[in-house]
Amino acid sequence: MTLIQEKVQQAITILQEQKIDLWLTFVRETSAGGDPVLPLIYGHDLTWQSALIITRTGERIAIVGRFEAEAAQRVGAYDVIGYDEAVSKPLLDILRRFDPKVIAINYSMNDVLADGLTLGMYQLLNKYLTGTPYAERLTSAENIINALRTRKTSAEIERIRTAIHTTEKLYFETFEFLEPGMTEKRVGAYLHRRVEELNLTTAWEKESCPAVNAGPDSPVGHAGPTEIVIQPGQLLHFDFGVQQDEYCSDIQRMAYVLAPGETTPPEPVQRGFDTVVRAIQAAVRAMKPGVLGVEIDAIARKVITDAGYPEYKYATGHHLGRLCHDGGGILGPRWERYGDTPNRPLEAGHVYTVEPGLMVPGYGYVGLEEDVLVTEDGTIFLSTPQTDLILL
Amino acid sequence: MTLIQEKVQQAITILQEQKIDLWLTFVRETSAGGDPVLPLIYGHDLTWQSALIITRTGERIAIVGRFEAEAAQRVGAYDVIGYDEAVSKPLLDILRRFDPKVIAINYSMNDVLADGLTLGMYQLLNKYLTGTPYAERLTSAENIINALRTRKTSAEIERIRTAIHTTEKLYFETFEFLEPGMTEKRVGAYLHRRVEELNLTTAWEKESCPAVNAGPDSPVGHAGPTEIVIQPGQLLHFDFGVQQDEYCSDIQRMAYVLAPGETTPPEPVQRGFDTVVRAIQAAVRAMKPGVLGVEIDAIARKVITDAGYPEYKYATGHHLGRLCHDGGGILGPRWERYGDTPNRPLEAGHVYTVEPGLMVPGYGYVGLEEDVLVTEDGTIFLSTPQTDLILL
Repeated sequence: MTLIQEKVQQAITILQEQKIDLWLTFVRETSAGGDPVLPLIYGHDLTWQSALIITRTGERIAIVGRFEAEAAQRVGAYDVIGYDEAVSKPLLDILRRFDPKVIAINYSMNDVLADGLTLGMYQLLNKYLTGTPYAERLTSAENIINALRTRKTSAEIERIRTAIHTTEKLYFETFEFLEPGMTEKRVGAYLHRRVEELNLTTAWEKESCPAVNAGPDSPVGHAGPTEIVIQPGQLLHFDFGVQQDEYCSDIQRMAYVLAPGETTPPEPVQRGFDTVVRAIQAAVRAMKPGVLGVEIDAIARKVITDAGYPEYKYATGHHLGRLCHDGGGILGPRWERYGDTPNRPLEAGHVYTVEPGLMVPGYGYVGLEEDVLVTEDGTIFLSTPQTDLILL
Repeated sequence: MTLIQEKVQQAITILQEQKIDLWLTFVRETSAGGDPVLPLIYGHDLTWQSALIITRTGERIAIVGRFEAEAAQRVGAYDVIGYDEAVSKPLLDILRRFDPKVIAINYSMNDVLADGLTLGMYQLLNKYLTGTPYAERLTSAENIINALRTRKTSAEIERIRTAIHTTEKLYFETFEFLEPGMTEKRVGAYLHRRVEELNLTTAWEKESCPAVNAGPDSPVGHAGPTEIVIQPGQLLHFDFGVQQDEYCSDIQRMAYVLAPGETTPPEPVQRGFDTVVRAIQAAVRAMKPGVLGVEIDAIARKVITDAGYPEYKYATGHHLGRLCHDGGGILGPRWERYGDTPNRPLEAGHVYTVEPGLMVPGYGYVGLEEDVLVTEDGTIFLSTPQTDLILL
């Protein structure tokens, strides 16, 4: 099964769970914009007004312009209706055939990834539905799209694994390449060159991917590498990921540059590092279907604060997928800015980052980030977790 | 002035012409989708709910999340209001300050490029405007956006010129490279490699850019190159363009492969080529502000049919810009499928392709395509028009 076939199949299950009779994705000329759900359930652009219909009873129908019918057929996930003049007739025929009581369409005030229907297309749809009972049966597909994006199928997990594998390889090369005396920028440029040579893109805006933080004075967050020089006796922190075959990785790694005479890191550095490792391990051990994101966040956060460090000012983790921050629930605290997102339960198939952090005064920032997969039997690491400080 | 500054300035003129008091572009998390007008009037992504406001009186205000305020400032086209909690308050403040009678927002049933407002964002906007008079004053920005896209500023024309120059250089290299006996695919692959080496992309889907048509049996249209071999005594047709610095070129070129013993092309080939050249020259001579697209189409079409060839089954030209088919009016006949688009007047600053064609039985397709700029004083070629058949 292709990724698209898997996702369309999964959508049917989700419709059954959510008791939605029919899900309608209504688009046109998607090369000029397009609905963010399209890459998941279709995988190509559509030119004329097109309707992708999935029903609770397992029907999958694509109504597309005649000249795109063959391409739609090749997707292998839909029965295809090619039209010549107007989408409205076959669309209404299909609606009458299924007579759905609830029709979900792609709009959402909360979630941009579920808000792919433009106002003009909604007006067109309403025009076509005028005089039918269906105009009154429309509801938001927000929950469908959210479930579909966050529950990764095996093809999706495979792609994320590949992106992670590439990232780990590039980290290995970077630690071979770098030397004290180089600037953060120089190391960042090395990673950019490697990403380009592999014909990949970075998992988020190139300017801050990788983040490179050398020592205690480097600004941590979504700032780019600076002219700060990597120096002995300091921590070196990376945050980096790639997008490969449309899916992302997101991994943080730590090194320590030994000072003259040192053979092991100083005690505060080692203790900071070990604390972050323990926080990750504790969180991942607790992750399983049904647990809320906020509960996992609290576990990781408590390891950090119990060890006497101030709590980090961000969430412990986020969904990872087609986007690095892939929407949906977070592993985070109930802070106002996170809205409802920490209160959602983990599900099998969810892929999250786990990324606590802390500052070791005088040495620099310690942050590790692992990518993990929730399964029915608990949670497994997709990245190979870093448990020892890399010594340079 | 940057391109963005030019376009925002131009928008003010358009608002005055169209008697629209205020134009509101309302977006969020545009990296996940985004309004197609954003690259023209802002040039970056926006994360939190953001409002770009341009008024008839010349005010330009960007209301953006606090952390993006500095980036918005650097655009150099807006007074920036950075907010911490909610966009609604500063948005309502601004509306009350200007008290616009007509507010244009980005929706359109006809034009995907003017339909960037999603239904969820429209619902949010309505929520914010509840209890104010402004909810009742909304109208479509379709005509604003159409004028803004089609009237190219000097910075846009410069970019199109650069893409054209690159395309002409790549054509030159290709005619040096190619030899009879090669397949269409091999020549297509050569151009793909060169585009990649220059870090550019093709102006439309790579599969059919370039189109390469060797001899009379090659399928003309938006099909890709085939295994058909380039042979002596046949015509060779190309349709190709690049996207460079966000703007496109779109040029067709013709060669003839001399048969053994030939020193000039056969009479039917030369006559077909000359006819297409004459059609282009006649059309371009007639192009000036105020003339309708349909009138220009008729002139080019008549040269072809007067010479005894069947009329071509497509429009004579289209707008060229950020997209190869850049929306708006066409130089085309009043056929149903073109809707109202042939009836729009040419304006100074419009950039069009001009691309008549005909079939020379037994030899192949003749199509030339030039890129031209309408000015107040008439129309000038941006491409260097091909007036002699390239002989191989």
